[in-house]
Amino acid sequence: MSATAVTEVPVRAGGGLRDYAVRVGTGLIDTVGEVARAVAPSARRWVVIADDTVGALYGDRVCASFGGADAPLLTFPAGEHNKTRARWEALTDAMVARGLGRDSGVVALGGGVTGDLAGFVAATYLRGVPVVQVPTSIVAMVDSAVGGKTGVDTPAGKNLVGAFHPPAAVIVDPTVIRTLPRRQRAEGLAEAVKHGAIADADYGRGIAHRAEALLSGEVEAIRRMVLRSIEVKASVVSRDERESGLREILNFGHTLGHALEAASGFGLTHGEAVAIGMVLEAQLGELVGHTRQGSAERLVEILQAVELPVRRPPELDPEVVEGFLGADKKVRAGQWRMVFLAELGRVHDAGGRWAHAVERGPVRTVLESS
Amino acid sequence: MSATAVTEVPVRAGGGLRDYAVRVGTGLIDTVGEVARAVAPSARRWVVIADDTVGALYGDRVCASFGGADAPLLTFPAGEHNKTRARWEALTDAMVARGLGRDSGVVALGGGVTGDLAGFVAATYLRGVPVVQVPTSIVAMVDSAVGGKTGVDTPAGKNLVGAFHPPAAVIVDPTVIRTLPRRQRAEGLAEAVKHGAIADADYGRGIAHRAEALLSGEVEAIRRMVLRSIEVKASVVSRDERESGLREILNFGHTLGHALEAASGFGLTHGEAVAIGMVLEAQLGELVGHTRQGSAERLVEILQAVELPVRRPPELDPEVVEGFLGADKKVRAGQWRMVFLAELGRVHDAGGRWAHAVERGPVRTVLESS
Ligand SMILES: NC(=O)c1ccc[n+]([C@@H]2O[C@H](COP(=O)([O-])OP(=O)(O)OC[C@H]3O[C@@H](n4cnc5c(N)ncnc54)[C@H](O)[C@@H]3O)[C@@H](O)[C@H]2O)c1
Ligand SMILES: NC(=O)c1ccc[n+]([C@@H]2O[C@H](COP(=O)([O-])OP(=O)(O)OC[C@H]3O[C@@H](n4cnc5c(N)ncnc54)[C@H](O)[C@@H]3O)[C@@H](O)[C@H]2O)c1
Ligand SMILES: [Zn+2]
Ligand SMILES: [Zn+2]
Repeated sequence: MSATAVTEVPVRAGGGLRDYAVRVGTGLIDTVGEVARAVAPSARRWVVIADDTVGALYGDRVCASFGGADAPLLTFPAGEHNKTRARWEALTDAMVARGLGRDSGVVALGGGVTGDLAGFVAATYLRGVPVVQVPTSIVAMVDSAVGGKTGVDTPAGKNLVGAFHPPAAVIVDPTVIRTLPRRQRAEGLAEAVKHGAIADADYGRGIAHRAEALLSGEVEAIRRMVLRSIEVKASVVSRDERESGLREILNFGHTLGHALEAASGFGLTHGEAVAIGMVLEAQLGELVGHTRQGSAERLVEILQAVELPVRRPPELDPEVVEGFLGADKKVRAGQWRMVFLAELGRVHDAGGRWAHAVERGPVRTVLESS
Repeated sequence: MSATAVTEVPVRAGGGLRDYAVRVGTGLIDTVGEVARAVAPSARRWVVIADDTVGALYGDRVCASFGGADAPLLTFPAGEHNKTRARWEALTDAMVARGLGRDSGVVALGGGVTGDLAGFVAATYLRGVPVVQVPTSIVAMVDSAVGGKTGVDTPAGKNLVGAFHPPAAVIVDPTVIRTLPRRQRAEGLAEAVKHGAIADADYGRGIAHRAEALLSGEVEAIRRMVLRSIEVKASVVSRDERESGLREILNFGHTLGHALEAASGFGLTHGEAVAIGMVLEAQLGELVGHTRQGSAERLVEILQAVELPVRRPPELDPEVVEGFLGADKKVRAGQWRMVFLAELGRVHDAGGRWAHAVERGPVRTVLESS
C-alpha cells in the first residue's frame, strides 16, 4: 500500500535537542526506511525492534522498507512485564554482537512498551543513537511515541529508570490499528479523551460520536483521532519539554489514576484507571470549586461511549487507594498535587501554575462517593 | 580542614543543558554537601556513591558535609570490572529502596569508574537527577569528571552503554591524591601530558620538570597540574559538547592507544596505552608530514619523566594491534581516523576538521619500528 495524504505535526524537542516531526498517514508503514534515512542521515545501519506480536505482523514490511539494506528485526516477548532492564540489556547486546557503531539507528515498532524499551536502548547505546518511533497501538500513537520519554520498569515500580531521548521522527500509520484488539483500542482512547478534556471540548465530544468507528478500528476515524491527539500533545510538549511546567497538564486524571491502577494490583489497565481517575479528579475539581459544575458528568458520557469504566470498582477500598497516592513520585514533600479542569476542554490555571495542592478531606469524599 | 584558595573553572554543557563549574581547592572535600545543595537546590535528598576503597577513606567526611542531614553512602567493590550494568542496577535499586524521588541527587565520589557508574545511575534515575562529581583519582580529576560522559562496560567492550549527563558541579580537592597509589598517579599523568601536547607545550614540559612532586602526590604540584588540565579540557568541551568536532582532539593518542590496550588484553593500563599511543601517533604524524619533526621525541622525554612507557611492548604483534584498530567505535565506514599534532602544544587542523584519515601503510611502519 502506498502512502496518501500525509500530515506532518512539528514537535519542538526543547533543551537544545533536535526538533522532529510526526508524520500521520495511511500506508506510511512502508515508508519507514526511507524516512528514517532522511531524518537521521548519520545512521548508516538500522535495526528494527518490536515485540513478537507486532514483529510477526509488521516486521517484514518495515525491514523491507529499507530497500534491501540489512535492517534486521530484533524481537522480545510482548507485554509490560518485559519492559525490563534485562530486556534492555539483551537488546543492547544483540546490537553489539552485530558490530553496530555510532553510525547506527533504531526503529521502535510497536506499542508503548516497545517505544519505551527500544527508545531506552537507543538513548543509551554508545551514549545515544537516533530512534525513529513507529507506534502501532493507540496508546503509543496518541501518547508514548511523542515527547521523548523512554525507560523501563523495575520490580519496585513502573518507569523508574529511563532517559529523555526525543525521536528523530515519529511515523504513524493508522491502518495498523485494524489488528489491535478492541479492548486495547478502548485503552488508548482514554488518553485521547484526556486530550479533549484538557484542550479541546469539541474533540472530546467527537470521540463519543464516533465511538463505534474508533472502537472497531475504522481507518479514517482512527486517522483523524490520532492526528488531533498528536496535535494536542505535540503542542503541550513543544511548549515545555522537561515536565516542569505546562507539561503537567498531561497528568490530568493520572494522580488518582495511578493510585487506582496500583491499588488494583494492575487488574485495571492504565487506560481504565485513567478513565476513572479523570472522572474522580473532575468531581474533586467541582467539589473544591476549580471546575465548572457538570464537567465530570460530561466526561462520564464520553468515556462510557468508548466502553471505559467511570467509577471506582467497589472492591478497591478508598483508604488503600489513598495509600498509593502517597507513593506517587509526583508527590513532592508529602504534598498531593493535581491538575484540575476549569471545564471540559480547558484546565484550571492559577497564574501559570498548573498543578494544585489538594487536601485529604475532599479526596476522601470523592473516593467514597464514587 | 577548611577550604583555601578556591579556583572556579566554568564549563559550557552545550545542547541546551545547564552550564556548571569545576571548583578546585585544598580542603574542598568538606564542602561537598554545601556546594551540592547550592548548585542543585531542587535536590532535597542526596546519596553519596563510592567504591569501597574510596568510601572507607573519604565517605564519612563527604556524608558529614551534608551537615547531619541523611546523606547515606552507597558503595560497590572497587575496580573497572565493577563498572557494569549489574552494579548500575543494584545502586538504582538501593536508591529506590530508600524511597528517593525526583527531588534527589547523587554525589559521585571516586575515580573514573565511580564517576562513570554513579553518573549513569543519576542520568537514568527517574529519567535523570543531578549528579555532583567529586573526582579522587588524577584520571578522574583531569579527565572523566568533566565533560558529561557517563556509562558502563558490557562483556563485549568498554563504555558501550551510557548517557551524556553533565554534572551540576565538579569539586576537586587535590589533597585526596595523597592516598592514591603512585602507579595510579602516573596513569593519570598520561592524560595531563595529552592536554599539554594538544594545547599547551609549556604545560607539557612543566609536567616533566615537576615529575617527582607529581608522582609523589605533593598537594600544591597536584593542584596546579589538575587546574591547568581542567582548564584545557573545559575549554575544549565548552566549545563542543557532543564530540562532533573539536572535542575529537581529546582523542589524540587514543586511536592507537585503545588498540594497544585491547591487544594487551588490558595488561597495559589505559594511561600506559595512551602514553605509547601518543608517541606512535606523533611518529605517524611526522611520517605523513602533519607533525613537526622532533615532536615525538619531546613527548617521549616528558612521558619517561613521569614513569610511563613509550614503546610498543615487543610481545604485542603489530598485526594484532592493527586488528583491534578496526574494532574501534570511532572508525566510520571502515576508515581509520586520527588526530595529529602540528607540534607539541598544537593539533594539526585542516580547515576545522580535526580527525584525519590514515592509510594502513604508515600505521604499519610506525607499529613495526616502535
Ligand atoms: N513514554 C511515554 O510518554 C508513555 C506514555 C504513555 C504510556 N507509556 C507506556 O506505554 C506502555 C503501554 O503501551 P501499550 O498499551 O501500547 O502497550 P504494549 O506496547 O504492550 O501494546 C499492547 C499490546 O498490543 C499489541 N499490539 C501493539 N500494536 C498492535 C497492532 N497494531 N496489532 C496487534 N497487536 C498490537 C502488543 O503486542 C501488546 O501485546 C506502558 O509501558 C506505559 O508506561 C509511555
Ligand atoms: N567519562 C569520561 O569522559 C572518562 C574519561 C577517562 C576515563 N574514564 C573512565 O575512568 C575509568 C578509570 O578511572 P580511574 O583510573 O580513576 O579508575 P578507578 O575509579 O577504578 O580508580 C582507580 C583505583 O584507585 C582507587 N582510588 C581512587 N581515588 C583514590 C584515592 N584518592 N585514594 C586511594 N585510592 C583511590 C580506586 O578505589 C581504584 O581502586 C575507566 O573506567 C575509564 O573508562 C572516563
Ligand atoms: Zn497515561
Ligand atoms: Zn583516555
